Amino acid sequence: MRFCRFFYMDKVRWGMLEDGRMQSLSAPPYYRVVKEGDPLPLEEVNLLAPAEPSKIVCLGLNYADHAREMGVDLPKEPVIFLKPPSSVVGPGDRIILPSVSRRVDYEAELAIIIGREAYEIPKERAFDYVFGYTCANDVTARDLQKKDGQWTRSKSFNTFCPLGPWIETELDPANLSIQLKKNGEIKQKSTTANLIFKVPEIVAFISSIMTLLPGDVILTGTPAGVGPVKPGDILEVSIEGIGILTNPVQGMKNVLAK
Amino acid sequence: MRFCRFFYMDKVRWGMLEDGRMQSLSAPPYYRVVKEGDPLPLEEVNLLAPAEPSKIVCLGLNYADHAREMGVDLPKEPVIFLKPPSSVVGPGDRIILPSVSRRVDYEAELAIIIGREAYEIPKERAFDYVFGYTCANDVTARDLQKKDGQWTRSKSFNTFCPLGPWIETELDPANLSIQLKKNGEIKQKSTTANLIFKVPEIVAFISSIMTLLPGDVILTGTPAGVGPVKPGDILEVSIEGIGILTNPVQGMKNVLAK
Repeated sequence: MRFCRFFYMDKVRWGMLEDGRMQSLSAPPYYRVVKEGDPLPLEEVNLLAPAEPSKIVCLGLNYADHAREMGVDLPKEPVIFLKPPSSVVGPGDRIILPSVSRRVDYEAELAIIIGREAYEIPKERAFDYVFGYTCANDVTARDLQKKDGQWTRSKSFNTFCPLGPWIETELDPANLSIQLKKNGEIKQKSTTANLIFKVPEIVAFISSIMTLLPGDVILTGTPAGVGPVKPGDILEVSIEGIGILTNPVQGMKNVLAK
Repeated sequence: MRFCRFFYMDKVRWGMLEDGRMQSLSAPPYYRVVKEGDPLPLEEVNLLAPAEPSKIVCLGLNYADHAREMGVDLPKEPVIFLKPPSSVVGPGDRIILPSVSRRVDYEAELAIIIGREAYEIPKERAFDYVFGYTCANDVTARDLQKKDGQWTRSKSFNTFCPLGPWIETELDPANLSIQLKKNGEIKQKSTTANLIFKVPEIVAFISSIMTLLPGDVILTGTPAGVGPVKPGDILEVSIEGIGILTNPVQGMKNVLAK
């Protein structure tokens, strides 16, 4: 099943794709799917990020090839960081480059959407707490990441967490091709089979630290091939079985000149 | 004015302290204070953390004496990290030690509560966006902080962000004494005059990165004197003009034994 958030008739709604149309739902679909009204033609709705997370937990260096290109050792345990909910944008939304950075990179990632409150979940039961998956772009100001040591600032700018286009709930995440295209050219190409820590281990690890809530988002890390963007670039994250998340890059906004 | 969140008659409410009694409010007090019902005796209400943040943004190494005790250079810009909302507990709540850490430290901090949506706010106007202040304890698993490099895991465990006892809105944060007592003994003692980056610079810096929302919390950093806790310890963060945030420490919970 594919679940979306969208804007229609001045209201943000949850919906599901059904026979090429959008069926509105009366509430978030995590627990129970309740239809509301007649299905809408897809071209009349404006898709939003398919999540309203209370937190976004991310893994660093979770593909061996990316750890190598960053020149660091493979992690023995997951390394986590957080992105703020204010960084989320949806499919088609612009990624805005902050003037304080000279180097902003794309990072294609598989995102997990949590479906049930999860605390101290063993990996054997982890899938019971996963609602589905979507595409993410863990946009990163690479120069600030290196300068700060801590990764938070570089990954927390508004618009730095595109998510979408929808949540796919019937998907085995074990071996999905994942790629990123910049202006139509493939820049990252891998498979989730190359994840160092897999989805069940990730959910177990994070839920051993903090309580995950329905709608929370986990970014599982990016494969090799990260690189810079410039104003006017079009970024497409595509994951097998989910779809394509497309975001244009907007030129520098000069904060200091305001 | 002092604003609280509290639990009374099966319901979470906002309130304000008035003549030694608790006046219920019909909504969060950020924009407008609307009284609801008769005042309650203080002893009948159970105080909760006075914030429901969409994010908690924290500064590292923002007192020179603490940076020295950690053996690191003074930051030229603020270094930020995030704690998840799931880490928040209120006055009197237990701090639970995770079994995965052998060294958990207290960190007394002044917390800023944001009152209005804030993006790209110059420091000259920063106070317009501050609703008030409360006490915070930025509890940190020191061994995991060193091991991970990234600070997120070590600061994100459930119960690792005590806040309270209330929000004080009429306060100049320029020179407030701040201290932490462990079992009645003073362990940290400083003043907010020793902050490297002051409240207006902090709000300007963070809001140049991300949109702050009403109720969001900023922890401004901890002074020298951080140290370990053990089961049974009582921690008290006190800040001049605000009050005392008291939290007991609970013994290890062995996750692996579950």
